Amino acid sequence: MMNNKNAEFNHRNYYLSDIPLPEAEDIFFGESCVLDVIKSPASEILPLTATLGRVTSDPVWASTSSPAYDSSAMDGVAVRSEDTIGASETNPLTLIIGSTAIWVDTGDPMPDNFNAVVMIENIIEENETSISITDPVAPLQHVRPLGEDIVATELILPEKHAITPPDMAACAAAGLTKISVISRPKIAIIPTGDELVPLGTNIKSGDIIDSNSVLLEGLISEWGGVPSTLGPIPDDYKRIVNCVKSALNDFDMIIINAGSSAGRDDHTARVISDLGRVLVHGVAIRPGHPVVLGIAENKPIVGLPGYPVSTALTAEIFIKPLITTSLGNANLTRSNQMQAIITRKVNSQMGEDEFLQVKLGKVGNKVVATPLQRGAGIIMSLVRSDGFVKIPRFSEGLDYGSEIMVNLNKTQEAVENTIVCIGSHDMALDLISSQLRRIAPHITFASSHVGSLAGIRAIQNSEAHIAGSHLLDPDTGIYNITYIERYLDRMPVKLVRLVGRIQGLIIPKGNPKNVNTLIDLARPDVNFVNRQRGSGTRVLLDSKLKELSISDEDIKGYDREEFSHLSVAATVQGGNADTGLGILSAAKALDLDFIPLMDEHYDLIIPNDYYQSNLLQPLINLINSSGFQESVDALGGYDTHDMGKIVAEFN
Amino acid sequence: MMNNKNAEFNHRNYYLSDIPLPEAEDIFFGESCVLDVIKSPASEILPLTATLGRVTSDPVWASTSSPAYDSSAMDGVAVRSEDTIGASETNPLTLIIGSTAIWVDTGDPMPDNFNAVVMIENIIEENETSISITDPVAPLQHVRPLGEDIVATELILPEKHAITPPDMAACAAAGLTKISVISRPKIAIIPTGDELVPLGTNIKSGDIIDSNSVLLEGLISEWGGVPSTLGPIPDDYKRIVNCVKSALNDFDMIIINAGSSAGRDDHTARVISDLGRVLVHGVAIRPGHPVVLGIAENKPIVGLPGYPVSTALTAEIFIKPLITTSLGNANLTRSNQMQAIITRKVNSQMGEDEFLQVKLGKVGNKVVATPLQRGAGIIMSLVRSDGFVKIPRFSEGLDYGSEIMVNLNKTQEAVENTIVCIGSHDMALDLISSQLRRIAPHITFASSHVGSLAGIRAIQNSEAHIAGSHLLDPDTGIYNITYIERYLDRMPVKLVRLVGRIQGLIIPKGNPKNVNTLIDLARPDVNFVNRQRGSGTRVLLDSKLKELSISDEDIKGYDREEFSHLSVAATVQGGNADTGLGILSAAKALDLDFIPLMDEHYDLIIPNDYYQSNLLQPLINLINSSGFQESVDALGGYDTHDMGKIVAEFN
Repeated sequence: MMNNKNAEFNHRNYYLSDIPLPEAEDIFFGESCVLDVIKSPASEILPLTATLGRVTSDPVWASTSSPAYDSSAMDGVAVRSEDTIGASETNPLTLIIGSTAIWVDTGDPMPDNFNAVVMIENIIEENETSISITDPVAPLQHVRPLGEDIVATELILPEKHAITPPDMAACAAAGLTKISVISRPKIAIIPTGDELVPLGTNIKSGDIIDSNSVLLEGLISEWGGVPSTLGPIPDDYKRIVNCVKSALNDFDMIIINAGSSAGRDDHTARVISDLGRVLVHGVAIRPGHPVVLGIAENKPIVGLPGYPVSTALTAEIFIKPLITTSLGNANLTRSNQMQAIITRKVNSQMGEDEFLQVKLGKVGNKVVATPLQRGAGIIMSLVRSDGFVKIPRFSEGLDYGSEIMVNLNKTQEAVENTIVCIGSHDMALDLISSQLRRIAPHITFASSHVGSLAGIRAIQNSEAHIAGSHLLDPDTGIYNITYIERYLDRMPVKLVRLVGRIQGLIIPKGNPKNVNTLIDLARPDVNFVNRQRGSGTRVLLDSKLKELSISDEDIKGYDREEFSHLSVAATVQGGNADTGLGILSAAKALDLDFIPLMDEHYDLIIPNDYYQSNLLQPLINLINSSGFQESVDALGGYDTHDMGKIVAEFN
Repeated sequence: MMNNKNAEFNHRNYYLSDIPLPEAEDIFFGESCVLDVIKSPASEILPLTATLGRVTSDPVWASTSSPAYDSSAMDGVAVRSEDTIGASETNPLTLIIGSTAIWVDTGDPMPDNFNAVVMIENIIEENETSISITDPVAPLQHVRPLGEDIVATELILPEKHAITPPDMAACAAAGLTKISVISRPKIAIIPTGDELVPLGTNIKSGDIIDSNSVLLEGLISEWGGVPSTLGPIPDDYKRIVNCVKSALNDFDMIIINAGSSAGRDDHTARVISDLGRVLVHGVAIRPGHPVVLGIAENKPIVGLPGYPVSTALTAEIFIKPLITTSLGNANLTRSNQMQAIITRKVNSQMGEDEFLQVKLGKVGNKVVATPLQRGAGIIMSLVRSDGFVKIPRFSEGLDYGSEIMVNLNKTQEAVENTIVCIGSHDMALDLISSQLRRIAPHITFASSHVGSLAGIRAIQNSEAHIAGSHLLDPDTGIYNITYIERYLDRMPVKLVRLVGRIQGLIIPKGNPKNVNTLIDLARPDVNFVNRQRGSGTRVLLDSKLKELSISDEDIKGYDREEFSHLSVAATVQGGNADTGLGILSAAKALDLDFIPLMDEHYDLIIPNDYYQSNLLQPLINLINSSGFQESVDALGGYDTHDMGKIVAEFN
């Protein structure tokens, strides 16, 4: 699509006219054919055994009674109550089997004219043909009368009710074998884009794996719809129109994914307006504003933006209600909300409703919410998210420490069972996150990588249970301790060794630029990639540069900051830098070369209260286990000798 | 199975030795092969698109980075940042297309040696080959660097993690097409019993529809297992043994349903002990105590009792943990708990843990829990249940008004959106329950049928939003008003007409006993079925009998009490009574004959606060709608003329 740029230049409509979200919702959900999908869904008749989780379209009435006859509620003998009058301990009464007493098991029908049951425990065997009893029994004793559970014609289930296992069993007992349920709406997903390639393709530069269709199929299935992906289709107006036309015959609703903006290759709005009517183009929400809402042939047709976080959010806002409301909201576990304290100041654009993904955890007695990376392209922000907070369009953002209301996508209990680790990144943390689930599957280890100093500050502010830190005191050559003394004054914490590791220069295979020491960073032909301020690696670099009297300004790329060792390695791997400072294991992970410069300690700072808590106990056990140490050793480049050892205590 | 009773008599072991629940759990879940199912589940590799909701068996690491190359984050032109230095409003800088500027769309790879993007909005078109800009751009501006979202080798998902739609999309973006997940345990359900017939059979006396297998299949599916029903199998030791033997080859776990007690036809314990080992026989819980827990060929094999409520409860206690723990508890939405006030005194057996099903609702500012019918055979108690309360084995029960902790099977929000209606039953209430969902699908109408007087008391005690009542004042012939004045002194309530209906004698088709008036009830050949004390129908009967000077003692069956019109009709239909007093529509529903005796009013008593609440508004609208009135008319026997009318107000 690099040709004909100028010819098409004039077709561009650079500015969408974004309208506020409530207005867009009113227009779209108020449109009659959209209302039809919601209010008059189709129904279908299914065998009872296939209805678990489906939603009744009509009330379900009992066809037969249960029990369908008077039956014994116990193992014992059926008797006529009047025959038992006068029985007592001192005067046992004899009953003749087959005449005044008939053996029955639980569930057996009562013999004609018998009206009570004597439990087996209360029977004295006399001989093969007679028994005796020592108590009279009242009429109907231990008898389950016809219809005790269900009476024919009784209401078993209301309409628009999500069917549970007991519901199915009750319907079975009530003589029903088929149930009329609301049909699940069929939704076509049409992914568009020249760059899209299906899952499993070996991607080359310019290719993007069509992960959005996987995302949309999953979401639609979870909400109760039946998704089908038709595509990917290239950015070709004709082909998209044809695909939509044929989908209009077979589906209840259509999603065109990507191409919803107003760029050169953005055909969605034109496709919808040519086949039907565009109701809304552009909604003032972030992420996600280039949304197209329309109808064609009396069916809703929606263009969703292509960045995955925008796709998920706009689908949640405009597609989910269509599906769940048509199913009566019957099996919607309404997302719970939870109050939390935001751990960072967040700026937000006036005029837009922003939906910010956050990671939650309960530290001490407050629930803290850490904002996740905000780019609409960051699908991992959804993977890591525990919920989102909506920043309204009349607000400029959230102040540090504000109380916010989070729309949860996990349970409150799961939030309370989350270990919050903030600070520097090490790959051993990934292994903790994964292996902890073997021994404590209810616990989530959530680690945010913002650098060592920010981790210590999070401990200081009671916003984390653990901080990962590798901060060198250049004056003493000692790691972490000076920083704890400086920032965590009078806070009882333990310093726990995680790993010893090797810092050095990460370089491409074969070292094409012949980089060998930190001095080479000042060479004009060497592009460097740096770590963010406050990270242990940055502190290390700056102290070493000072020793070597190299000025920042002499290093090309000093200002380019990445947030993890792996990102530095990826930058070198991608050719965007010739070298960066990082740990050996990151170089190994991406199969790069490495020039070792110095050993360092990577430790965990843990307040005493948390160190001894039930929440952290499995983690402490894990890092002290030889199995875990071996799996860290297997990564390469680590010294795990003192892993789990308390190297200092502060009281 | 009525033959050979005595020959087998001596095989009976009347008394199971019930052990406390915690002891049974320790024995069973501590057994090594049971631990194996839990701790070392099998795994399988699935295509990524088939993994929604499945649980990872291993950590998932990124195979490729995403983006896999530096790409444009905007529509615009790629430039070299250094070429843009000096651009300003007053001094626009010209760039040549194809040389210093290259058109790019969002997602396009950055051309080699270009390091920034100028957004389309900031470009001034000069002509076909050149553009100009008014601002310089920094390196990497509007560029998504390689690995911004995901870096190859990064942890995407930990092990034992339930896969969500964003997880799937992230895996796709990270180049993964297959995921190793924990296998869902395969569980055989073997229903046993001569009386069992499959769904859809036309049942005759003695038949029981095998609804328990439907129940167990549904529960096991919900918990994450794969159920298969093998049966029903008759109560025949050999056939059960053979079925279990073959199931041991194909399944991870086996459930034998019913026959778990110690009666004549109870083979489960012997089957397990002959094929393996019985660990526990009998657990001190109610309902459910005859449980058999064992192992055979290193697989758990469990005998569950046959009453449906017992089946569900014991499966929840002994089967669910096996499944969910083997799946890492990863997608277990832990059932929430909620505090509530119990609305009735509940006696419970010392020495047994009792699990009591309750119906919940929020009335005023308290959450009230109404106990549901307790019989182990009452599957409708599970259908109606909002959760259960555990009455511990050291307790004799719950006092009226006690605070209890309810284990919810719905959300707290659903509890808060429940209309609690207590009192007399009328079939129009069933229609309300069903049709209300059309206009307010988030609201549940929960009605308990305990009689008119108990309904008024529930209003008095703020335990219900609505009471259904048809209480005749015999002195005045006026319905309800006298009772409201007596019991609801100084409480502002409205009396709302629901229906006029006809009370009379319900009799079998053709009136075989020639019953014609209430006087016939005193005939010695007529068996009567009565309603419970406090019901409007009972009040009516008693006042009429007094008028006619008929004594209770002259009526055979006066003491036999049923709790609803339909139950009275079912009793007459089943031949257990010749007649009962009830409403015409109940007779019509079961196709019985009817002798009309008098008209009566069935009204709703609603405190003013609730009448005006958002919760009740849809219900008030419903009963005032002509559509609803028509559907009540269609039942027959009703006068819906004044439906919804406020017939009296008390302030």
